[in-house]
Amino acid sequence: MTIKRVAIIGLGLLGGSIGLAVTERAPEIATTGWDKDPDVREKAGTRNLVGTVCATAAEAVANADLVILCVPVGAMEAAARDLAPHLPADAIISDVGSSKKSVLDALSAALPGQTIIPAHPVAGTEQSGPDAGFATLFAGRWCILTPPDDVDAQAVDALSDFWTKLGAKVELMDPDHHDLVLAVTSHIPHLIAFTIVGTASDLEDVTRSEVIKYSAGGFRDFTRIAASDPVMWRDVFLNNKGAVLEMLGRFTEDLTAMQRAIRSGDGEALHELFRRTRAIRREVIDQGQDDSKPDFGRKH
Amino acid sequence: MTIKRVAIIGLGLLGGSIGLAVTERAPEIATTGWDKDPDVREKAGTRNLVGTVCATAAEAVANADLVILCVPVGAMEAAARDLAPHLPADAIISDVGSSKKSVLDALSAALPGQTIIPAHPVAGTEQSGPDAGFATLFAGRWCILTPPDDVDAQAVDALSDFWTKLGAKVELMDPDHHDLVLAVTSHIPHLIAFTIVGTASDLEDVTRSEVIKYSAGGFRDFTRIAASDPVMWRDVFLNNKGAVLEMLGRFTEDLTAMQRAIRSGDGEALHELFRRTRAIRREVIDQGQDDSKPDFGRKH
Repeated sequence: MTIKRVAIIGLGLLGGSIGLAVTERAPEIATTGWDKDPDVREKAGTRNLVGTVCATAAEAVANADLVILCVPVGAMEAAARDLAPHLPADAIISDVGSSKKSVLDALSAALPGQTIIPAHPVAGTEQSGPDAGFATLFAGRWCILTPPDDVDAQAVDALSDFWTKLGAKVELMDPDHHDLVLAVTSHIPHLIAFTIVGTASDLEDVTRSEVIKYSAGGFRDFTRIAASDPVMWRDVFLNNKGAVLEMLGRFTEDLTAMQRAIRSGDGEALHELFRRTRAIRREVIDQGQDDSKPDFGRKH
Repeated sequence: MTIKRVAIIGLGLLGGSIGLAVTERAPEIATTGWDKDPDVREKAGTRNLVGTVCATAAEAVANADLVILCVPVGAMEAAARDLAPHLPADAIISDVGSSKKSVLDALSAALPGQTIIPAHPVAGTEQSGPDAGFATLFAGRWCILTPPDDVDAQAVDALSDFWTKLGAKVELMDPDHHDLVLAVTSHIPHLIAFTIVGTASDLEDVTRSEVIKYSAGGFRDFTRIAASDPVMWRDVFLNNKGAVLEMLGRFTEDLTAMQRAIRSGDGEALHELFRRTRAIRREVIDQGQDDSKPDFGRKH
């Protein structure tokens, strides 16, 4: 079983990058695409994000053997219901959402009997929309598949092959475990970044202009993540509530311990944590998940 | 009054970068340097971080008209006391520390009668030591001077000129206000990053290996800041306790509000914050404080 025709529903950063990556790395696979926004469809045509930009979702999926929903996780069920009457019976349905249990539930409810394999390529930038995608977004990144227990193993293999062709490394995971892992490595970091950027822009005794001017002291890093797509992220937090609240609880416990160490002047506790965290950075770089150049390789 | 001879005490990232920047951008200024660590002195000689690496601090400052202490803020007073008997009476004493009220107090106590102008170039990377410095570290960055009220205005002008020559933009500020501004734009972001990286590496239900593998979802950004020099940062938190605790209080209030919004499913509150924070990123880029390329310009 090999994927030959992929339909991409939603042509933003992720959908567009999949289309471009297929064209560049697996040109034997035909791509169709559709976005509910006519402006996005037009732009997708101009940038050749997919082989054929279709006028309707029905047309886009008509001959697909893989349909990838690239919409916010909160829009997944409605998008699937709209597609339902038009899907080929043997098409694999997948997605790229950042929470997986909610997506599995939504797609299972909307598309009974269909082969559903949720997926999450752990890749992205702070930009969004049809101008943001690029063909190498998935190179060297992990793509996590969360197939239900009773799904056809050949379909899982076919989807794995597809992502491998795009340059990703594939891992299978239970959806609940995915949601816990990503709460730590993605959702909480985003929540913290959004929050601190909000805090900094609401102060009375420090002006917004000062916050911007002196942002190179560390704050500017957080502004990048806090520039991510607002609707996508709203949906992630609403759809991974349990794991996010669990991990947020652990973070605030640790932050409270640091607060106490600062208040009591416990330099040893601070130093002990700061020494430990350095090692993690080295591991992230050693495993190819970030640039080894200082300051992310920013130009100086 | 023009600076002609600069002595740099401490030859790590900041001290080394000052020396290299003088050589590249203001070669008419002579540089001497010293570090208490003999290995650092040797490396500084190999890399030509300064014109002359001296065997003693006394020798390094003997003919200086500007002495810059590039040591952790907690080591400032002891370093100044060691230098006291050897300083030319008319030398300006400055530093590069990230907290300014504590440094002003420490240097004033150690060096009565000397011209003291604390300074903070808001620039750096996560790397440290004599290998880390480079000549363009200060280009386009702000350097904040916090002169005491009664200091010689010509000395302030001379120090401003010096930093301008290195490519920095200079601003004068009250030391207490500096400490409040930098608590927001630098110290709290670092504390949060150190903490979340610690939290993520201490979980039982998510392995360290999973945290590293899926770090491209946002977490890897925090690992960069959390790789910063542990001693430097311990000292910053111990020496800017008041402002850090004040700003941390505001952050945790805001984070608690987000936690409540997630728990109650208040998508509107989440979306409202996430939309606002996007604008700040644009201002940071428009004002030249970060790269406009997506993902900090990381290679994909």
